[in-house]
Amino acid sequence: MKPDTLIIGAGLVGPVLGTLLAQQGQQVEILERNSDLRLKPARPGKSINITLAERGMYVLRRIGLEAQVKQLSVPVFGRIIHGANGQCDYQPYGNHQECLYSISRHTLASCVTSYAEAHGVKIQFEHKCMGLNLSQRSLAFEANGEFYSRSAPLVVAADGAHSEVRKQWMQQSRMNYSQIYADHANKELLMSAESVKQAGLRLDALHIWPRGEFMLIAFPNLDGSLTCTLHLPFEGVQSHTALRTREDVERLFRHHMPEVLELMPDVAAQYAAHPLIPMVTVKTNPWVTHDFLALIGDAAHAIWPSYGQGANCGFEDSLTLSDCFQETGNVGEALQRYAALRKPNADAIADLSVQHFEEIRSQVGNPQFLERKALERQLNRLSPDQFVPLYNRISFTRMSYVEAIEREQQQRRLVDSILQREVEPLAVSA
Amino acid sequence: MKPDTLIIGAGLVGPVLGTLLAQQGQQVEILERNSDLRLKPARPGKSINITLAERGMYVLRRIGLEAQVKQLSVPVFGRIIHGANGQCDYQPYGNHQECLYSISRHTLASCVTSYAEAHGVKIQFEHKCMGLNLSQRSLAFEANGEFYSRSAPLVVAADGAHSEVRKQWMQQSRMNYSQIYADHANKELLMSAESVKQAGLRLDALHIWPRGEFMLIAFPNLDGSLTCTLHLPFEGVQSHTALRTREDVERLFRHHMPEVLELMPDVAAQYAAHPLIPMVTVKTNPWVTHDFLALIGDAAHAIWPSYGQGANCGFEDSLTLSDCFQETGNVGEALQRYAALRKPNADAIADLSVQHFEEIRSQVGNPQFLERKALERQLNRLSPDQFVPLYNRISFTRMSYVEAIEREQQQRRLVDSILQREVEPLAVSA
Repeated sequence: MKPDTLIIGAGLVGPVLGTLLAQQGQQVEILERNSDLRLKPARPGKSINITLAERGMYVLRRIGLEAQVKQLSVPVFGRIIHGANGQCDYQPYGNHQECLYSISRHTLASCVTSYAEAHGVKIQFEHKCMGLNLSQRSLAFEANGEFYSRSAPLVVAADGAHSEVRKQWMQQSRMNYSQIYADHANKELLMSAESVKQAGLRLDALHIWPRGEFMLIAFPNLDGSLTCTLHLPFEGVQSHTALRTREDVERLFRHHMPEVLELMPDVAAQYAAHPLIPMVTVKTNPWVTHDFLALIGDAAHAIWPSYGQGANCGFEDSLTLSDCFQETGNVGEALQRYAALRKPNADAIADLSVQHFEEIRSQVGNPQFLERKALERQLNRLSPDQFVPLYNRISFTRMSYVEAIEREQQQRRLVDSILQREVEPLAVSA
Repeated sequence: MKPDTLIIGAGLVGPVLGTLLAQQGQQVEILERNSDLRLKPARPGKSINITLAERGMYVLRRIGLEAQVKQLSVPVFGRIIHGANGQCDYQPYGNHQECLYSISRHTLASCVTSYAEAHGVKIQFEHKCMGLNLSQRSLAFEANGEFYSRSAPLVVAADGAHSEVRKQWMQQSRMNYSQIYADHANKELLMSAESVKQAGLRLDALHIWPRGEFMLIAFPNLDGSLTCTLHLPFEGVQSHTALRTREDVERLFRHHMPEVLELMPDVAAQYAAHPLIPMVTVKTNPWVTHDFLALIGDAAHAIWPSYGQGANCGFEDSLTLSDCFQETGNVGEALQRYAALRKPNADAIADLSVQHFEEIRSQVGNPQFLERKALERQLNRLSPDQFVPLYNRISFTRMSYVEAIEREQQQRRLVDSILQREVEPLAVSA
């Protein structure tokens, strides 16, 4: 039995897309290069927690998985900013109990994978994509040391930022492509439930220690622990390169966030054991080709994790692709429509994620920034339907990223005029 | 005997850099994946002619090769614009007999290769780079079916826009990288010396047939023929995709440049036989790594051929790298200095080449554009040291690309004020 759709990659986006298409009555098969992640525990240090926003949650709602995922997530209602002086400031996301859902990547991936299988999606692990022949519309895979070729009316590459399908495609057809790394990289660190409890840290908020050139950000887990991410430049005085010894790591924390060192006495050992995770923005064009092949999720548009929109955007991609497929019933037309709808939005959230990183890193403790944010919340309270801060439109609505940025340009003029400042345009392409 | 410097690629830039370093007293070896191009005739349809400007010529002068290259080149003193109505307009490049030197890629490559060998550079052909190990500072090559590894204090990748060294490097170390294709591609066509003579076409100028969405540009050869390049969009009503049959090709020429069809009666056969040549801008960062490896020429910064600056910029790279090496005597320091000096200039000419393509394609026949160009020549005549049009600074001086663009921003304000127009900023990063 030949599948209607072949998906490469059983990360987060592949199984969600598979479920959507299976629910349309398609035969769907997913080939994944790695082994089944449900058979092994999560590896520490390898991921930043996922924050599911309304966009992502909506897609899970559509496939019937929302309730289950919410049970596995921790809702967070705002940010707690830990100042250099030890003072804390709670900034709620909004006036209406808006929240994000913090969930470990391993948990979410396991959940969507099992759900896809329950809907008849066939998932094969340790099947590695080795080749692509665009003109023949076929792909080569390797499993158990054997090579074989496959084809399908629709093939979707959901194989991540370092997509093998994309690499093969680029060798055969002109593709505009860019990969831009941040000067910063992340290191994952875990704060135990015991420490969190002892310090009385709230579990219904993200925690941020902004320190100018670097910052620590912490996401609550169901077991009461916090998954922390240390954002630090690769090079420079305060950098990953400069952290050569246990003492260097402890000195950084002791000097800039001594309370964290007390709560994570093993921080130096964790730092040494965990890999550096770089942040990369990948843009590609086209996303679809030869009336059968599409890129989706990080394979099409890897973004920095700063806005927490990676998985959310990938889930939206999946819903749009499946909707286009249902509306047109024609693979070539559906692919063209999918790319036209999603590409401008992926570009927009990519640029916004770069900008937001700078903002949370350096601005979150800035009085003028806080004044602006407070004013935005006030305007939102006065006019909740008309004035919605950009962060809230991105995180708590399903308005397209492009439209959200256009609205923000208008709102910014209003806020600037109230603050009697000059208009500063948003440095983001809408 | 181990070489001081190993260069990958014996195209244009590799042999020039090799000669510069050999003249400093270095042992230099070049490994080239292809066979020796001097042993075979030039393949028709595979290249656009090189136009050597003052920057490139200066480097050849420094190594003592200027006179020989001039003998193999045709000097061109301006452009002849062939209007849609059949009228011709001659636009000299400047007021001082400024000229470019048109030379076939095959001739120039043969010449610099032999010259490098004459200076003791060892060139090995059909040695293909297969691997790179950055931390071990070694490279793997294959020749005659055998694999071997090599290292050297300085390794320079001059292996072109599709550099294998760069590809390997990107797998091992974070590199910002972008490749952006033009919507247009080129097709090379040859107009015989007989036809050129019959039509009385001048051989001391470039010929351009600008036709809005597409254009034909012709470079004179020593034998009296013209190497023509048809720039046409990939897709659309008038596009390469639309040229399916002999009749389609002939119809395009008959309708838009009938005189060319008469002079190239075999245009359809040539069109069918020759490959499409895409235009791609490649940007990379960093250019140097691990205190031993550098990218140079197209491997670091492929640019569109519209400004005729590809080889010129690569030759300038070579001179800068060799100067930095001589000044510092330290590989790591020389590489950092080389990259800091050249990267901003390569970005500048890359952006300018994209902009110039739009200009020559659509503006060259435009009366307002011609008025502006005439005014620029007049201002240059009045004040030859102060007011120099951008094209002339790029083509006939050695002022850095970045500075040339900065000067142009100032001049543009002057010209705009004389033409009583609003100031239009240059859409190029300086």
